[in-house]
Amino acid sequence: MFYVMIMHLSLLRRRINLSFIQFAPAFGQVERNLDTALRLARRAKSGIIVLPELFNTGYAFRSKEEVRRLAEPARDGGTCRTLVTLSKMKSSTIVAGFVESDRGSFYNSAAIVSKGKFLGVYRKLHLFHKEKTWFSPGNLGLRVFDQDGFKIGVMICFDWIFPEAARTLALKGAEVIAHPANLILDGLSQTVMWARSIENMVFTITANRVGVETRGGETFRYTGRSQIVSPKMKVLARAGTMREAVASVSVDLGSARKKVIFGENNIFEERRVKEYHRSFGR
Amino acid sequence: MFYVMIMHLSLLRRRINLSFIQFAPAFGQVERNLDTALRLARRAKSGIIVLPELFNTGYAFRSKEEVRRLAEPARDGGTCRTLVTLSKMKSSTIVAGFVESDRGSFYNSAAIVSKGKFLGVYRKLHLFHKEKTWFSPGNLGLRVFDQDGFKIGVMICFDWIFPEAARTLALKGAEVIAHPANLILDGLSQTVMWARSIENMVFTITANRVGVETRGGETFRYTGRSQIVSPKMKVLARAGTMREAVASVSVDLGSARKKVIFGENNIFEERRVKEYHRSFGR
Repeated sequence: MFYVMIMHLSLLRRRINLSFIQFAPAFGQVERNLDTALRLARRAKSGIIVLPELFNTGYAFRSKEEVRRLAEPARDGGTCRTLVTLSKMKSSTIVAGFVESDRGSFYNSAAIVSKGKFLGVYRKLHLFHKEKTWFSPGNLGLRVFDQDGFKIGVMICFDWIFPEAARTLALKGAEVIAHPANLILDGLSQTVMWARSIENMVFTITANRVGVETRGGETFRYTGRSQIVSPKMKVLARAGTMREAVASVSVDLGSARKKVIFGENNIFEERRVKEYHRSFGR
Repeated sequence: MFYVMIMHLSLLRRRINLSFIQFAPAFGQVERNLDTALRLARRAKSGIIVLPELFNTGYAFRSKEEVRRLAEPARDGGTCRTLVTLSKMKSSTIVAGFVESDRGSFYNSAAIVSKGKFLGVYRKLHLFHKEKTWFSPGNLGLRVFDQDGFKIGVMICFDWIFPEAARTLALKGAEVIAHPANLILDGLSQTVMWARSIENMVFTITANRVGVETRGGETFRYTGRSQIVSPKMKVLARAGTMREAVASVSVDLGSARKKVIFGENNIFEERRVKEYHRSFGR
């Protein structure tokens, strides 16, 4: 009886709500953006909640000085502390992008916090466009965080185009990939994220921003369409292209464990590693 | 003047027609299927022409004996000889799937022939479902064929779900990936092939079959939707789900050489190889 109950509880624990929060951060207005995030987070169910890349600052920096001014240390910076508090209130795990300062360097990072604890950061590996001017490339690798037995990988925005990023996270055991983003390429990226889900048989949560930023002689039109995609490439939730949006779906993360398609093919065990290009790995 | 002409010719030579031929092979009726292929090939423009996986035999084998009976050696088998002749008549490069017999083993192979010459075969690396019973896994690696300066990689059907297959071909220099297929998974695979195009910035030609096969207690419904996709993920041609179809598009293969997106990011040079999972490569 006791054993049966334990089994039952452990099965139950594989179910969790996945959520994205999509909105248009106002450039440089950190307090206002944090307020927006807190307001929208009320509409997300407790579970794993993903906010956009650079959700607290906006994206279109004009100078390194601006980057410096808006950067914050991880863990003890104001944004991370707010996220930690929010994660406690919501009894949730939250992944959200911010500019991280660390020993004079700046990173396009995502914090991961859970139930009142700061778990760590992922620093974006593949920098897009002018990000190469503002940020240092990530130096912490691709990370999977185990929280309550749920294995959460993190990648940011342009990492989508490199299949190795999601693949590495999945090979490290990620069941769900949190993908904060500021996507601009006409929805191409969202479609490629469908591929990332099925080729790795993981859930993906892309939290994209909306709105337009015109700064420093450039205009960025963000494409919204935040989405949650299943390991079988079913789009479980999708936002529009213009408005703020929150969506939560209840899923069984266990379904991202067995890598079997069509009842017969294990897409991890059947990789023909010796035949792949040697430059895939170190 | 002479120099300018040479330059001009070499630029011209990067343009080529890409084509797929989609139809419903009749199981076991090799002569009839070859005839159908010859008839449809008339409608394809000269260039690179791709036919479906196992286009000459059909797919749904019932026994190893059937496989043995329908298998042919590469190069000197009847199907390869017909393809060689066709390639000469069409002044084209042709990629087409067939069951290859070699020293008592059978492979789900694709022949590549060009302008009257047999160039070689690719043997499918990742076998789907019952193919594991009928065929030996490919043992020739992922191959890129250089024909008239056009670099053509070959993969077959289920290889689509392994990002390493297309990636390996692209890293080996493929500008276009010929992808003979017998796809059944509701068009998921075709969408993932869009990702294969943009993540590697290569052209992909998926030649899928149509029709239904009910044999050996199983029913396969093939999904058609053969397609040609550009390095920027534009679907240049697409067939329907039910009927035979031929499409040709003229492209500049040179556009698959520069791996630059958004004018700034070289997606090959910017790979963070040291951060990728070591099991990607040998």
